[in-house]
Parts: sequence; structure tokens; C-alpha cells
Amino acid sequence: MNRTKALKQAATKQDKPATFAIFNQNNITYFTNFSGANALLIPEHGENVLYVSPVNYEQAKAETRGVEIQLLRRGENLMEKIAKQTSATKICVDNLGIESWRLLAKAVGGEEKLEVANSLICELRKKKNLDEIHLIREACKLSNLGMQTAAKTICVGVKEKEIAAEAEYAMRKAGSDGVAFDTIVASGLCCAYPHGTFMERTIQQGDLVMVDLGATFRFYRSDITRTFSVGEPSEEQAKMMQTVKLAQQVALGTMKPGVLAKDVDAAARRVIADAGFGEFFVHNLGHGVGLEVHEAPILSPDSKDVLEEGNVVTVEPGIYLPGFCGVRIEDTVLVTSDGAEKLTHA
Amino acid sequence: MNRTKALKQAATKQDKPATFAIFNQNNITYFTNFSGANALLIPEHGENVLYVSPVNYEQAKAETRGVEIQLLRRGENLMEKIAKQTSATKICVDNLGIESWRLLAKAVGGEEKLEVANSLICELRKKKNLDEIHLIREACKLSNLGMQTAAKTICVGVKEKEIAAEAEYAMRKAGSDGVAFDTIVASGLCCAYPHGTFMERTIQQGDLVMVDLGATFRFYRSDITRTFSVGEPSEEQAKMMQTVKLAQQVALGTMKPGVLAKDVDAAARRVIADAGFGEFFVHNLGHGVGLEVHEAPILSPDSKDVLEEGNVVTVEPGIYLPGFCGVRIEDTVLVTSDGAEKLTHA
Repeated sequence: MNRTKALKQAATKQDKPATFAIFNQNNITYFTNFSGANALLIPEHGENVLYVSPVNYEQAKAETRGVEIQLLRRGENLMEKIAKQTSATKICVDNLGIESWRLLAKAVGGEEKLEVANSLICELRKKKNLDEIHLIREACKLSNLGMQTAAKTICVGVKEKEIAAEAEYAMRKAGSDGVAFDTIVASGLCCAYPHGTFMERTIQQGDLVMVDLGATFRFYRSDITRTFSVGEPSEEQAKMMQTVKLAQQVALGTMKPGVLAKDVDAAARRVIADAGFGEFFVHNLGHGVGLEVHEAPILSPDSKDVLEEGNVVTVEPGIYLPGFCGVRIEDTVLVTSDGAEKLTHA
Repeated sequence: MNRTKALKQAATKQDKPATFAIFNQNNITYFTNFSGANALLIPEHGENVLYVSPVNYEQAKAETRGVEIQLLRRGENLMEKIAKQTSATKICVDNLGIESWRLLAKAVGGEEKLEVANSLICELRKKKNLDEIHLIREACKLSNLGMQTAAKTICVGVKEKEIAAEAEYAMRKAGSDGVAFDTIVASGLCCAYPHGTFMERTIQQGDLVMVDLGATFRFYRSDITRTFSVGEPSEEQAKMMQTVKLAQQVALGTMKPGVLAKDVDAAARRVIADAGFGEFFVHNLGHGVGLEVHEAPILSPDSKDVLEEGNVVTVEPGIYLPGFCGVRIEDTVLVTSDGAEKLTHA
């Protein structure tokens, strides 16, 4: 079933309007495979309409199929253009800043004619089809290569940023469309910060070095983290690494369709707590990966998600000891019909 | 004057509330020099409050000064926490998606207690101080190096993406904190699209090659475009290149404090129209550059901005002939006390 049809069906099931005004760039890309539009109108009946400003108009005409392209001229009011195009009594909107929301409400004749329905699209995007899984696999292969390159680059005397440079360069040369997010290389005391710093530190003997990177391939992303030890890890460092590794294995072992996402998180969290590090696992176990590097579903203690075949999520337990060091291991993982498959390897 | 004080003063001048709830990441960074927070409360009196989730809490404590850090625990409602912290009768909000806006409105007791005031912060951010100009200069130096590297890499037989790879690698090795935006290398027919494609094309004799790239340094960005000719350009290509170059020179010559941004745009647009390419200059002349690669002020036919000392903007005329090729030249430019200074050179 095509994505537009699936969206309308989902809307109807929830007694929501089957007309959509979509503004989020990733949502627009999801439905059109084109990333340079200002808005997408999905009417209840008839062809979808993509609104494109002059700068991307020629490209939109050349690169899209099955959608009407409307030129959004300088000075034209996008919201009025959308309102004129549809006679729907009510319109679902994916997401919009308050100022734009008010402009759209004015154009359609009142806020009561709009309904926020981003969750419907998030739900669709959660379950990847074979084409999407293929692209994510490609992005994962690129990030595997990036991580192997990082591993080869890490040694005493090299700067964190040089490790990032080599890893990103290897991914680009192999075909990455760009990094999936800002690469993190955090060593020594810095790797006690899950998101690292400006990567100016020089690697020293005895460091742990956390590398978190991803690639993009045709809009789809990957996400992988490894923590390396420079020289023999201390007893405490070794215990942290073993604990995180075990937490990931245990979590992966619980994953299959029908399992509650919060239970997967709990499985990993229990291993870390049992090892005495409970309070130092300061983030969720994982998040969906696709067009965005953070999307639904979420693996967290308060998640409402239930795993289904086609979900792609990270599984990334971590332990961060302020003033000492940190460890995180992360893979991008596909939920299969009867379990979970790691798409990243390194 | 510090930024918080300047914001309150600007608000008071416009009879707006002097209490701010700030959610945009770049705005938060502007006021705190920290990028990992969920929200910033600027109360009318007393210390600013930064709300940070556990994942970034230790880092926020270590890296911020002069701001109270509040831990946002799992399950805590950020909007209620903000509402509890302030007794203001009305709060300015910078920008917020409609769903979060409604949550905040509920927490503070109604939408009428909120006022959208992003423009006040945009106004402040338009005028860069010496520290900001220093960082943008550093980012520009890095992008100059990237462009020189691209120039050296371009030759028949090399792929667009390899040119991007070499340029990005050179910037990273020299200290870039990452690309300022997705690098564009567009050659042949592709450079008739201002934003390029997936960069899979191989450079051929007779191509024009458009390279648009930028670096980031300590949150601040740069933006530069050059169009290269592989071999002798055709007569039409040469005319396009001369026209775009002249349009940029003419526009730069008009820039100084007090000049209307739309007049700068008009000056460039006139040169291009006079050469017979008017309808093929399909975008604005330029945009502000700072924490974001697209921010205020804007150089466009309908801009309301007036140039002032400390503005940093791109000046980027272009001509795009569908089915043939395109030319753009872009520099990041500082408005000085009596003119304009190009910060990018290549």
C-alpha cells in the first residue's frame, strides 16, 4: 500500500480528517522522496500537492512523481494557497510552530478547523518497509566502516577531532551522503559526558575513548557507538565495559514483535543496576532511526511503544561516572519477525 | 551589556513582558553558550534557569556560568516546572511547536498569558559582537581552506562526492567542529539546481562545478560558494560567470549601515536582469549567518531589514539555466562602520 493511502486509512480509523497539511521536512520526504519543498497537501481525494519555492522548483519537477508541483512565488501566502486548494471541513496538521499555526488557522477560517496529528505519521514511519530497510542497511555499512577507521586511528597522541576527521572521511569516500549527526569522540574525563565536547583533547595512555557516529544514505541514517580502551583498562573500566556489553546482549535477547519497549529498557537497566551502576545510566536505552536519527519508537522506562516487525532502533546502554570516564555501546537494530538483527557491526 | 539584559531592555521598549521562556536550541546557546538544554527561563529579576535532562546535567554544571541549572528528571513536566518557577503575569516565548505551546499554555493558566516574541531575539542576534565576529572569522578561514581544497581536487574523472569528501576532511583536520550545512557539489546539468543532488556525478570536460560549503567553529558558521569551469568555459558560461561576479561586486559596493537590505538585493538583481538572466536568479541575494546558517537579516526583494554594523550576511547572486548549467558566487560578509568586509576568500 502506498504511504498516502496508509495515512488516510490510519486517520479514518481514528475518526480524524483524511486531509493533511504537512510541513515537517522529514515527513514531506517520507511521502514524496523530495527534500526541498515548503509544504505538502494530501487531500482526501485526488492528487497530492507539493508547494515549492522558485529555488527548488525545477528540481522538484524533475525529481518527483505522482504529485502536483505548485510554484510558491515570492510574496505568495503559503497558508492561503493551501486553504484555497482544499474544501475539507477539517485538516490534520503534522507539526507547526505557533506563529505558522496561527497563520494557517487564519487562512482556513479558525483553529477549530485544524487538528494536530503528527502521531499518525510517526506511527507510519515507525514500521520500515523493505526499501527503507535496504537504505538503512547501506547507511549502517558506511558507519561500520567509519567505526573501523576510528578504531585504527585511535592511539596515544592523536586528537579526538582527528579521529572524527578520519572516520567521516572514510564514510564519505565510500558513498555517505553526510554524517547522520555530529560525530562524538570523547576521551578520558570527557567520555563521562554522553555527548562529548569540542573534541580538542589528545588521547593518552589509559584512556577510554567513546566514538559515536553515523552515516546518511539517500535520506536514511545509522547510529553506532563503541568505547575503546587505550592500553589495558583498569579493573573499574573493565567492569563498566563488561556490564554495558552484557546489558546490551540481555536487551537484544528480549526484543521481538509484541514486546513492550519499556521492558527492553528495563532488561538493560536491571543489568546495570545489579552491577552497582544504576544511577549512572543517565539516558534511555534507545530510539528509532530512519529519516531522522531520533524518531519513534523509543526504548525508555516510560515508553508506550510496543515493538513490531520493521522497527529500527538503537540499543545503547551506557555508564557515565562523573570525573572518571564513561562507556557506551550502541548498535542500530532491526526488529524481525521473531527477534532482532544488529545492522551495525564493528 | 550582557545578552540577557539587552533582551529585557528590548522587551520593555516594546511594552512586552520581560520574562522569557526560551526553547530554540540556538537561542539557548546564544544566552548560555551551552547547547544541551531543554529550556531556558529568563525571569524579569534574578538568575536565569537552565533546564537540563540527566544525560547532559553533569556537563551543564561543568560548562555554564551565571545560570542556575535545574535537573529535569524523567517524567517531570518541563512546562509545569517553568510555570512554577515564575510569578510573571505574562511570559514571552521564542518559538514552540503547537503541541508544546498548548502544554505551556495549560501550565501557566491560559494562552493569554503567553506572547510570541522570537523576533526580539532575532533582532539581538542580527548584530554580532566582537566575540561572535571572531568565531565567524575562524569559521570563514576554515571554509576558505575547504574551498581551496575543493579547487585542487576538481578535475575530469573525479566524482562530485569525492570533492566534498576532500574539502570536508581538510576543514576537519584544520579544526572545524563540523560542516555548517550539507556540502553541495553540483556539476554539469546538476548545477542548474541551486541545491544540487546526491553528488554521484563524475566531472567531465566543459563542466561548470558549483561548490557550496561551510564550517562550524564553536557554534558559529560560515558559508561560501564558488563555481569552477573545467576547461575553457563556453561563451554563454563565461557571460554567466562575469554577470554573477559583477552582480556581487555591485551589491557589495552598496552595503553599509543604514542601507535597506532590499536595495542591496535590488542592486545585484538589476545587474543580472540587465544581462538578460533576470528570471533565472531564483533565490534571495543573501541571509544572515551566525549560530545558524540561515538567520536574520535577509537580503531579498521583500526584506524589511536595514543593515547595521555587526550584521554578517551572505551575498550570493546566482543564475540557473534549466537543462544547461548554473553559476553562483557567495561570500560571508561583515557590515562594518562604513562598508562591508568579505570574511571568506578563495
